[in-house]
Amino acid sequence: MAAFMSETRAIVTGAAGFIGSHVADHCLSLGMDVVAVDNLSGGFRRNVPSGCRFVEGDLREAAVVDQLWATHGPFDFVYHVAAYAAEGLSHHVRRFNYQSNLIATVNLLNAAVTGRARHFVFTSSIAVYGTGQLPLREDAAPRPEDPYGISKYACELDLHAAKDVFGLPFTIFRPHNVYGERQNLADPYRNVIGIFLNQCRRGEPMSIFGDGSQTRAFTHIDDVAPLLARAPLLPAAANQVFNIGADIPVSVLELAREVAASLGVEAKIKHLPARPEVVHAFSDHSRARAVFHPPAPVPLKEGLARMAAWAKTIEPAPPRRFEALEVSARLPVGWR
Amino acid sequence: MAAFMSETRAIVTGAAGFIGSHVADHCLSLGMDVVAVDNLSGGFRRNVPSGCRFVEGDLREAAVVDQLWATHGPFDFVYHVAAYAAEGLSHHVRRFNYQSNLIATVNLLNAAVTGRARHFVFTSSIAVYGTGQLPLREDAAPRPEDPYGISKYACELDLHAAKDVFGLPFTIFRPHNVYGERQNLADPYRNVIGIFLNQCRRGEPMSIFGDGSQTRAFTHIDDVAPLLARAPLLPAAANQVFNIGADIPVSVLELAREVAASLGVEAKIKHLPARPEVVHAFSDHSRARAVFHPPAPVPLKEGLARMAAWAKTIEPAPPRRFEALEVSARLPVGWR
Repeated sequence: MAAFMSETRAIVTGAAGFIGSHVADHCLSLGMDVVAVDNLSGGFRRNVPSGCRFVEGDLREAAVVDQLWATHGPFDFVYHVAAYAAEGLSHHVRRFNYQSNLIATVNLLNAAVTGRARHFVFTSSIAVYGTGQLPLREDAAPRPEDPYGISKYACELDLHAAKDVFGLPFTIFRPHNVYGERQNLADPYRNVIGIFLNQCRRGEPMSIFGDGSQTRAFTHIDDVAPLLARAPLLPAAANQVFNIGADIPVSVLELAREVAASLGVEAKIKHLPARPEVVHAFSDHSRARAVFHPPAPVPLKEGLARMAAWAKTIEPAPPRRFEALEVSARLPVGWR
Repeated sequence: MAAFMSETRAIVTGAAGFIGSHVADHCLSLGMDVVAVDNLSGGFRRNVPSGCRFVEGDLREAAVVDQLWATHGPFDFVYHVAAYAAEGLSHHVRRFNYQSNLIATVNLLNAAVTGRARHFVFTSSIAVYGTGQLPLREDAAPRPEDPYGISKYACELDLHAAKDVFGLPFTIFRPHNVYGERQNLADPYRNVIGIFLNQCRRGEPMSIFGDGSQTRAFTHIDDVAPLLARAPLLPAAANQVFNIGADIPVSVLELAREVAASLGVEAKIKHLPARPEVVHAFSDHSRARAVFHPPAPVPLKEGLARMAAWAKTIEPAPPRRFEALEVSARLPVGWR
């Protein structure tokens, strides 16, 4: 495979971040020539796989994107993983959310169309569904309820439009609650497992919004990244939308206990006032299974053990607060 | 009514444009204190009603919007009519489209939330429906198919989210194919009646994409603007979405003959290659009728007669081409 793919040039955005760096790893394993892009707003230079060419750049700037194509392109495959994925915070940073998640995507899409890219892989989110019927299925009509989910759904629709008008094939993934090695542990607004790990290691109680009975099916990165990397190579994945992730819902309270156990510490918990969020969410993954034939998902205990082992190699970081709130009304207490 | 409303401060965006200037007229008639905003990209200073305070400004800039509120606000009612409404062209100006239609809207929304506005009126479009089941009904799940429609739907969803989290009431209108006095006759990408009028007056043939059998229910501005202005005053209109416009579908070919007749000239027609567009579109208006009890719609002949009489008072303008195309691939022939 590697020899066959060595002429294939891929760009992976968000490649200094969590999911993006793993996708870049798998693209390298498939033998692609990989350009890694990140603005280092939430990612770290150390995450970028050494086999990539790394470019620091902000995809919200069309000139930056055009320069990427001019200097390093054209690209056969575009893996667009970069995003600002703080669902709850997005109500308070609407403009930043749409600039980061939608404008950046259309800058890439314009370049991909003009540069005749062969495939565009997009990481969407189950946030597009809103409070839909469970299990979440790809053929449900999405109804996102926060600016983050709205921006992701707008990107999905835009990719369909670009395929219809310009013939650019795409694959859209809707992962959920992904965790694992290289996740940013210093972001207080997203990635509950990273937040819990960081809090445990700093000796702080784990903060839970409400009573912790809300459930999610937490998904290890190894159940996600390999499928993204392979998507352009599978004809059956072209112009399709896929839920992707683990199947077993776990309550946030139960999760907190598992995280503490993975570090071998006592589970201290601090309950904060409930915030507006989806209470239960789990997805149907039969479509992804039929096309990708993935191995059995990584069990939560095993995934947490791997992540905890990695986290111990990283200095526990103080939370990095968002500096440019646009609306401070109704901000959840723990975020002030 | 006027005396009662004199303490009510409204901001009307796009007030130098076609629909916005008429909405501003009706807000003044209702006795509101009206601030009119426009960047004059598609509008004309002459359209702004004399009773308004006019501010030239670009709503894509958050600082401009914040300055509007600081200098002239806070506003009770926000009428957001400004947009760049070129559906077909939006495939080729994706970034411009989302900046103009979505980023501008969230800048206003942030200011409205922080400034505790009492109502946000938004002009969406039937473009949100895509090729839905006819007649288009508000309770259908939208599936927009071009960046313009996607941007409008994203704004709609964002308004729902802002209502849920911040309690800002809204009314969303989905007008279709609005025409009438003060419409920009120099925009070659949108507003087919304006394009036909301008072409007839310049002695050019009217350009039709495809065979002209595509149908639309063309709506005179007097069937639209009064309802927008009244929306914040009707409790039953709060947090609702309304189709709004005329009921009788007419083919574009038939329309061309009517436009020529309204000017008393021969109908010369030039067929261009078909472009991707919705073939038939007409809306169900029962929800708007039940809440607004509007008068009978203006018949097409009468509306065209009024518009033609107005157009004769305006110098026929050469088409203003869009200067900053982002993607030139697959641009329809007539637009090159």
